[in-house]
Amino acid sequence: MRVEIWSDVACPWCYIGKARFEQGLAEFAHKDQVEVVFRSFELDPNRPEGETTQVTGMLAKKYGMSEAQARQAEQRVADNAAAEGLGYRTEGRDHGNTFAIHRLLHFAKTKGLQNELVNLTFRANFAEERSVFDRARLLELAVEAGLDAEESKQVLEDPTAFAEEVRADEREATELGANGVPFFVLDRRYGVSGGQPAEVFKQALEEAWATRPQPAKLATVSGLPDPGQAEEVCGPEGCAVPQR
Amino acid sequence: MRVEIWSDVACPWCYIGKARFEQGLAEFAHKDQVEVVFRSFELDPNRPEGETTQVTGMLAKKYGMSEAQARQAEQRVADNAAAEGLGYRTEGRDHGNTFAIHRLLHFAKTKGLQNELVNLTFRANFAEERSVFDRARLLELAVEAGLDAEESKQVLEDPTAFAEEVRADEREATELGANGVPFFVLDRRYGVSGGQPAEVFKQALEEAWATRPQPAKLATVSGLPDPGQAEEVCGPEGCAVPQR
Repeated sequence: MRVEIWSDVACPWCYIGKARFEQGLAEFAHKDQVEVVFRSFELDPNRPEGETTQVTGMLAKKYGMSEAQARQAEQRVADNAAAEGLGYRTEGRDHGNTFAIHRLLHFAKTKGLQNELVNLTFRANFAEERSVFDRARLLELAVEAGLDAEESKQVLEDPTAFAEEVRADEREATELGANGVPFFVLDRRYGVSGGQPAEVFKQALEEAWATRPQPAKLATVSGLPDPGQAEEVCGPEGCAVPQR
Repeated sequence: MRVEIWSDVACPWCYIGKARFEQGLAEFAHKDQVEVVFRSFELDPNRPEGETTQVTGMLAKKYGMSEAQARQAEQRVADNAAAEGLGYRTEGRDHGNTFAIHRLLHFAKTKGLQNELVNLTFRANFAEERSVFDRARLLELAVEAGLDAEESKQVLEDPTAFAEEVRADEREATELGANGVPFFVLDRRYGVSGGQPAEVFKQALEEAWATRPQPAKLATVSGLPDPGQAEEVCGPEGCAVPQR
């Protein structure tokens, strides 16, 4: 079974929701047969790359509240994070464009290191004094995740590298009806929106598992003989040997 | 779109079929949106690990032909390989149990190096004077593919490492109706058996693409509100802030 998680490093509910999902997954009987893939969704794609703003100030402005109220709102999110054992700084965090981070996550996926980099960028952004909107720090995180420094640098410096992969994820999110993240899609059949409690994810996994489609007879490509009739095939009894 | 290829390193039509598939894929307009995954299928799972036999002698015995006839049959396969630009030794090749190779391929998949290792093991088995049924040589191939030597050694020495992944692939092959390899499955909807000509693969890709399901509305997990109603979500307009 395949779970796709659309998320953004700038999204606190993605950070908290990932921990809750993993807790639900840990309690799921068939967890060994679940593959998890992260997909890209930018919260703030129109902000110029490299331009950052302080989170509390941005919240105050957006919701018309005082800085103190914004910090209180952040504190409530921090309490939710703490309940999952996650650190969360309520002050001094940056907010910015995450396109380069998503490109780097797609590169990490090709090396089997996507989950490592997701974890490190979440931790850096929410729990540590490290901006993820700074290329040099992002490169440090890439290396920490196990990626090659030179290759990662090339990806970061080439704005077209893995750009199409990010855009394709974002198009799919729209097609699947996501208008916010985290957005969890199970086997392209079930959708769960938001950083729901662990037991919700466990239930979602169980429901998707119970209703998984039984293997159907595969369709044959037009004009081809039935797969069972194919030549140029090897089986337990040996290989078809061409007569010419 | 996702193409899964069930194959075995001991299967000549898998070796030739991979080259033909890749040629068909290269001519497919949406090739950048195709993900290829290799899946395990053992041709000779009952042969004890480490016990090998010469291919031509085995063919002669199996089909009741002379060694000379067996070599001629191998030569016809070699001609098919040559037409794809692939080397193929008609004499002196070993045949044996491929379980350890499949386990190692699953390990390589976790590092994003599965395709590299598939290519190297095919080449070693069919084109070079290198047995893939020898642990030391297999380890050399793993390192050549870019895998860590120590980690690969641990995988090779632990017969349970990635064993369940191999078994799961084989169960799925049976469920999908494969009784020989190579077996190509496109998006779990179309099946193509055998090392078919490149144009057949191109056509299969085009047909699977043209008939790909449009994104449906995802189902909601029982008892959950509609994904659109979820709290604990971040969108372009900001994040839901808990009131408690």
